[in-house]
Amino acid sequence: MILSNKTLKELQEQLKVLSNQDIANHFEDWSPEKRIASSRLLTKDRMANVFHLLSPTIKKDLLSDYTQEETKELIQQIESDDLVDTLQELPANMASKLLNFVDPVKRPLINQLLGYPEESVGSLMSIDYVLIHEDSTVAEALYKIQHASGGPEHLYQIYVMQSDRKLTGYIYLSDLIQSQEEMLTSMIHYDIQPVQTHMDQEIAADLFNKYQLHALPVVDLEGRLVGQTTADDIFRVIHQESEEDISIMAGLTSDQENTPYLEQSFWSMAKQRIAWLLFLMISATFTGYVIQEYEALLATHVVLAAYIPMLMDSGGNAGTQSSTLVTRALSNHEVETTDWKGVLVKELQVGLTTGIVMAVINFIRLALFDHVDLAMGLTVCTALIVTIILSKLLGGLLPVIAEYFNQDPAVMAGPLITTIVDTITLILYFQIATFFLGI
Amino acid sequence: MILSNKTLKELQEQLKVLSNQDIANHFEDWSPEKRIASSRLLTKDRMANVFHLLSPTIKKDLLSDYTQEETKELIQQIESDDLVDTLQELPANMASKLLNFVDPVKRPLINQLLGYPEESVGSLMSIDYVLIHEDSTVAEALYKIQHASGGPEHLYQIYVMQSDRKLTGYIYLSDLIQSQEEMLTSMIHYDIQPVQTHMDQEIAADLFNKYQLHALPVVDLEGRLVGQTTADDIFRVIHQESEEDISIMAGLTSDQENTPYLEQSFWSMAKQRIAWLLFLMISATFTGYVIQEYEALLATHVVLAAYIPMLMDSGGNAGTQSSTLVTRALSNHEVETTDWKGVLVKELQVGLTTGIVMAVINFIRLALFDHVDLAMGLTVCTALIVTIILSKLLGGLLPVIAEYFNQDPAVMAGPLITTIVDTITLILYFQIATFFLGI
Repeated sequence: MILSNKTLKELQEQLKVLSNQDIANHFEDWSPEKRIASSRLLTKDRMANVFHLLSPTIKKDLLSDYTQEETKELIQQIESDDLVDTLQELPANMASKLLNFVDPVKRPLINQLLGYPEESVGSLMSIDYVLIHEDSTVAEALYKIQHASGGPEHLYQIYVMQSDRKLTGYIYLSDLIQSQEEMLTSMIHYDIQPVQTHMDQEIAADLFNKYQLHALPVVDLEGRLVGQTTADDIFRVIHQESEEDISIMAGLTSDQENTPYLEQSFWSMAKQRIAWLLFLMISATFTGYVIQEYEALLATHVVLAAYIPMLMDSGGNAGTQSSTLVTRALSNHEVETTDWKGVLVKELQVGLTTGIVMAVINFIRLALFDHVDLAMGLTVCTALIVTIILSKLLGGLLPVIAEYFNQDPAVMAGPLITTIVDTITLILYFQIATFFLGI
Repeated sequence: MILSNKTLKELQEQLKVLSNQDIANHFEDWSPEKRIASSRLLTKDRMANVFHLLSPTIKKDLLSDYTQEETKELIQQIESDDLVDTLQELPANMASKLLNFVDPVKRPLINQLLGYPEESVGSLMSIDYVLIHEDSTVAEALYKIQHASGGPEHLYQIYVMQSDRKLTGYIYLSDLIQSQEEMLTSMIHYDIQPVQTHMDQEIAADLFNKYQLHALPVVDLEGRLVGQTTADDIFRVIHQESEEDISIMAGLTSDQENTPYLEQSFWSMAKQRIAWLLFLMISATFTGYVIQEYEALLATHVVLAAYIPMLMDSGGNAGTQSSTLVTRALSNHEVETTDWKGVLVKELQVGLTTGIVMAVINFIRLALFDHVDLAMGLTVCTALIVTIILSKLLGGLLPVIAEYFNQDPAVMAGPLITTIVDTITLILYFQIATFFLGI
């Protein structure tokens, strides 16, 4: 079906006010005819940006409808980091065909980008940047910028080097425009915080956060500029990392797919959840053995059972609070593994304070509403204080220990801490009961 | 003590390679002499940026050491949104003195910014921007940019309007520089996603995330440009919002102060934690009443107690998984409150699947290791399936219900869900036991 001129005119008006992301979303639903017509109505530059946002299937479909010439134009417009993403998504034979259309000068660089490990700065960076000698004139810099490729984010700042090609600083494009000077020198900022290609993308995200950047240079081991990462890429990284943390805290194996909740099959959802549930269920059987161990005590003092859930929940909650705070402090670099003594002291103080407050309130409640005798009241409240202190200590120290052994401390901010604390709580409770109830 | 020339020279070299954030950190530790000397060595522009990053105490100290002229220069260099932050932090008499130094043209705008509610887009935005008529020439636009105030992030894109002053689009500074055209028309992007001053800053952050922006225009109710927010501000918002979510999930009352972990007093830490701990402890007493209710049953079948922790933990974990996933889906707008039926069906399916898998594995474990009789095995495993299904349903639906009543669904992803699930689990467990054990 060929679209009428009137339809095309309407489509053009519609495309004009839509964002690239919205157009990409529409492409997923539109007919192949409407898609190809739209892709021809968009400017080449916009189409390259929309293309990057499409799903692999639609990318494949579009490319097979394109003429050779159209494919070539698209590939040359697309930004280097986006092109790498696309090449990684497409089947190998299609990808190698596309690589033939890449500007021969850029091809080795693209090949290099394709080789960086996932979640590394190298896989995130763009190779579109402007680099100029420190001693250049403003006019020379402007000339280079005018002939540079890459999107607006890649020209936010340009980079300066010395004769050994080592990155020494950067200049804001806006300063260059506003400047009355002839030479660049006075505009150069020397407070560079470069990252290296092999570093984890999280390090780059931390720097954007800490220094509130818009762009960050990427250098090789010799300190020479090889690319840059920009704020738009970092938003994606931050989102991804925070989803990962929350997944771990909720006892979920992280899904790579990012399918919206309602569109996931219940089977893939169940798979995502079952591993932790099973692991924790089996860990929780230890608490069962503890209870079986003290079965005789429980048989004579059944009322003891009534306070088990309250003690376990309080311990779990107290431990989760501490492990979350310490995990966060570790990831913000407020706490290092060498600070373990500071964490220990802090959690001991907080545990003692909160434990005593809770025990006092609980004692009043037990006396007023449950009418338990003194020995029972003392058992429950002493167990509560000890549980809170121990949970806080474990919650504070286990993430530090995990970090020390190069494990993700967030695992300790998850449901694991509850299971660990539960077992210890029960043992303490029954020991204290044996003491106070004089058995 | 006056610093020697040699020391000053060294200081200047040191400042050159430090980032603004690092200099601000040093200011917190340095002597007042070294601070004032450094502030005079920095360019006015950099000092304005460093100043913004200082703590209120150091800001006050510095300002009281400054001459009238120096204060005036600082105030005029500082960007409007940063100035508003500073004015809000300082004592009222100091703030009103500073306001006198503000460019009279800008004063009403600053006053307006001071009036926006916390966490609104208005409180976040900067009033530094360039707005130009659609029909202008490139030369006119460049002239406006050359004479604009504000940092490089405020000139990343400039905005265009029609004669009624309504925002119609934007142009990238880089496109302007690279353009060979005489008129702006062909460079204008019309896919604007403006936000309004009274909106929550989270809406702006969502747009940056979704469309991977570097800057976002802010308009008034009539669609006229009043300011813009930039990626650097948004990093702070995202960080703040994610800290808030994690706090709620860990049962912490959020602290506004953002003091590093090791520097917080144990008393302020205890305060942050005690409210939820007490609330949850008191809620958990319901579980105690349930157990007391079935005391007779427990007395004759003490072994029932051994499986209470495992059931409670499994239910809590299953509920937390669902509530976290649904809360996340709600905040990403993958799920709306009207989708409650979809959530119900999904969680029912997942609950049934995971519940059966867990029950089967648990049954085998009970038979092999605990040597329990069939009735007991059936009791525990039936209770496990029912618990998992119910926890998944509650975990999935409670966040949707919270959202429906305009409450933060994250509360349901926190420890509250565990407490709710615990009570229900216990009632079901004892009911099922009564049935299978034939009492």
